[in-house]
Amino acid sequence: MSTLLEQLRAGLPADAVVTDPDVLRSYAQDMAGFCEAGAAAVLVLPRTVEEVRHTMRTATELRVPVVPQGARTGLSGGATATEGCIVLSMLRMNQILEIDPVERIAVVEPGVVNATLSRAVGEHGLFYPPDPSSWEECTIGGNIGTASGGLCCVKYGVTAEYVLGLDVVLADGRLMSTGRRTVKGVAGYDLTRLLVGSEGSLGIVVRATLALRPQPPQQLVVAAEFPTMASAGEAVCRIMERGHAPSLLEIMDRTTLRAVNDMARMGLPESTEALLLAAFDSPEPAGELAAVGELCAAAGASEVLPADDPAESEMLLQARRLALVALEKVTGTTLIDDVCVPRGQLAAMLDGAQAIGEKYGLTVGSCAHAGDGNTHPIVCFDPTDEDEARRARESFDEIMALGLELGGTITGEHGVGVLKKEWLAREIGPVGLELQRGIKQVFDPLGLLNPGKLF
Amino acid sequence: MSTLLEQLRAGLPADAVVTDPDVLRSYAQDMAGFCEAGAAAVLVLPRTVEEVRHTMRTATELRVPVVPQGARTGLSGGATATEGCIVLSMLRMNQILEIDPVERIAVVEPGVVNATLSRAVGEHGLFYPPDPSSWEECTIGGNIGTASGGLCCVKYGVTAEYVLGLDVVLADGRLMSTGRRTVKGVAGYDLTRLLVGSEGSLGIVVRATLALRPQPPQQLVVAAEFPTMASAGEAVCRIMERGHAPSLLEIMDRTTLRAVNDMARMGLPESTEALLLAAFDSPEPAGELAAVGELCAAAGASEVLPADDPAESEMLLQARRLALVALEKVTGTTLIDDVCVPRGQLAAMLDGAQAIGEKYGLTVGSCAHAGDGNTHPIVCFDPTDEDEARRARESFDEIMALGLELGGTITGEHGVGVLKKEWLAREIGPVGLELQRGIKQVFDPLGLLNPGKLF
Repeated sequence: MSTLLEQLRAGLPADAVVTDPDVLRSYAQDMAGFCEAGAAAVLVLPRTVEEVRHTMRTATELRVPVVPQGARTGLSGGATATEGCIVLSMLRMNQILEIDPVERIAVVEPGVVNATLSRAVGEHGLFYPPDPSSWEECTIGGNIGTASGGLCCVKYGVTAEYVLGLDVVLADGRLMSTGRRTVKGVAGYDLTRLLVGSEGSLGIVVRATLALRPQPPQQLVVAAEFPTMASAGEAVCRIMERGHAPSLLEIMDRTTLRAVNDMARMGLPESTEALLLAAFDSPEPAGELAAVGELCAAAGASEVLPADDPAESEMLLQARRLALVALEKVTGTTLIDDVCVPRGQLAAMLDGAQAIGEKYGLTVGSCAHAGDGNTHPIVCFDPTDEDEARRARESFDEIMALGLELGGTITGEHGVGVLKKEWLAREIGPVGLELQRGIKQVFDPLGLLNPGKLF
Repeated sequence: MSTLLEQLRAGLPADAVVTDPDVLRSYAQDMAGFCEAGAAAVLVLPRTVEEVRHTMRTATELRVPVVPQGARTGLSGGATATEGCIVLSMLRMNQILEIDPVERIAVVEPGVVNATLSRAVGEHGLFYPPDPSSWEECTIGGNIGTASGGLCCVKYGVTAEYVLGLDVVLADGRLMSTGRRTVKGVAGYDLTRLLVGSEGSLGIVVRATLALRPQPPQQLVVAAEFPTMASAGEAVCRIMERGHAPSLLEIMDRTTLRAVNDMARMGLPESTEALLLAAFDSPEPAGELAAVGELCAAAGASEVLPADDPAESEMLLQARRLALVALEKVTGTTLIDDVCVPRGQLAAMLDGAQAIGEKYGLTVGSCAHAGDGNTHPIVCFDPTDEDEARRARESFDEIMALGLELGGTITGEHGVGVLKKEWLAREIGPVGLELQRGIKQVFDPLGLLNPGKLF
């Protein structure tokens, strides 16, 4: 241990090597707080690429596992500390190095907060689309690690679509560049895309070149209330089938609406089974909003409410962003599923999640990126009640099983972490798993990078 | 040899195993006809997944290399036969298995021709964007192998963005599924994206699930003539900087325009140094066409010519699609560079390519996907003239060196094949190369899949 600290300190400033047990404990977990963490040996907070390289060289020499972290807003335990590990927090590497409106790229360090980048590029008339609900806190490095999505991905795609190139420190401290600064590039295997979503298990991202888009006009929202989830699901299918390109298409169920009202007194309708929000950011969205309103009515909506202005639209979106926090207040803790299903199975998935909640006697509220089929059934439970915690875990699993049965995936955007390890194996099968392990072995032969995550 | 044929025939219909030397010779090369090919032992034309698996099991058992092929429209020698190999042509696996307008996906076999798919999904109001110039012939499997681009990628992205999931037969005959049918999915490492662009070196794609988009309105084109390449490059930068989203932004140089006129008598302007074509497919493109016209004029365009209707627009695009064939007619053979540079370096790249042509006493005509910075300097040469062939190869290399110097990549969309092997190593460096070889080893430990390509 003293060897580890001495060697780390030999190449790092004093304030970058933290051993205070209280601080270490505060870095032990991400938002999946119920995932059991080990006691880290040390927290390292590098400011430079060279400091990351020194940390990894030391880790390799002494065979110490390393758990990389961003803002720890992850929901699958992908950043949970393991016993005796180095927690490598990238928060201090938070510089935006370049924004180029001609090339439409930004070059950033991994600790840059998503919202900080979004605002900075906005000043140049540019747009970085991936917008996880935690966008005010989460970092670009963390977004890359988990291949994050968000609300506007239904039109603009997920993080993977926006990462052009990476600088990566490998397990042994070597520095590698992948990808490019150019729009296109197909030189060799796409290591950039392989690293996106690898949850810190293949290397430490120390710099990212990101693609940007021109900023679209502000979006306007139409809301529609439905008497059943099936009719809301029907509306989603018709909207997509007709070729509409909403910049957002979200669903909240009655449980979620009530929880948001309880917390924020937003006056959302609680008598409805599903509230659908559709937004358009085209220059003249009126026609699209009206057409979508009609499709909703035809599918059985009891009420269609176009927002009158951007402020009212923003209020509705705010309600959606609060869903998780509001449901957490119900019982103290939540398990958040992240099942993405074909759009045609959206209602079956959400109705099924509710039925599973009833079966286990638990509150399950759902919201969903409906246009993507990406559902987030949220299981509320009291972690101090052992039986309730067990039932929560079982219903969480049953929801994933239903997702696979409906032709979906166990994770649309949150990643696998420690929470869904067995489920990854179940989804991708033994051959895929063998190849994934083989790739891990190529990048990290000693198995030091974020051990125990993914598989 | 007889063992190989016997074993292949044991699991394949008689007409799927071809040994006629003339036929074998006709399958020996792709469009990079100057890349030397070996004599294949046999051509296999499977119709089913099981037939592909049988072929690969046989190849593994007998340690025979396998060269997978689509329509052989590739430009880098990625499909060149090697001595004693099995040429595995996927042309007969050409069924469109599913088109789903609600999920916006198509499921296809690898031998489906790009244009066939485009037309089929068009009947459902859908759009499969990647459109290589060879789209009337090239196959989806080949597009996936080389991670193809095309003209409309400036707005809609490249093949990698549209491949959601794959069924793949591995070197040893095992069948694996990657990815998903859903819009999102981040379960484990992204093997789908790893396989896209792997040039048949990691596995045989036998089925692909592709994302589709709603069909946009027909595009309208504005053309602008420039007295220098620098002023055309300046216009491209300003167009992108102002946040325009053209559905196409192409450049042709004077040499290319002349060649197209010589072949097709299209009446393109030959007195200009660069012709820029910009298209918009928004519902009301008039404003954007006018704004882009103004930016062109401000950058120094001598003439701005909006196409009056879709037919005139299509004629201009046709001219662009003919560029390569027209330049091939100049001397009989061409070497086509595929250098993608930052947009700001577009003019430097194209002027540089022309200067390199002059230095070596060769005709070099250039066209470019200008909005992407993806340039195609085309070196014309007479392959029967040994000295000219040597100069062609040297100028081809010098153009790639210039591309790297300008911050670009050696291949934006054509792939590495045999043509750019040394250049791949130069671009990605020793660490990246070591990891790529490691990944190849995981998928194909015996090195049987498309040996000698990439690295």
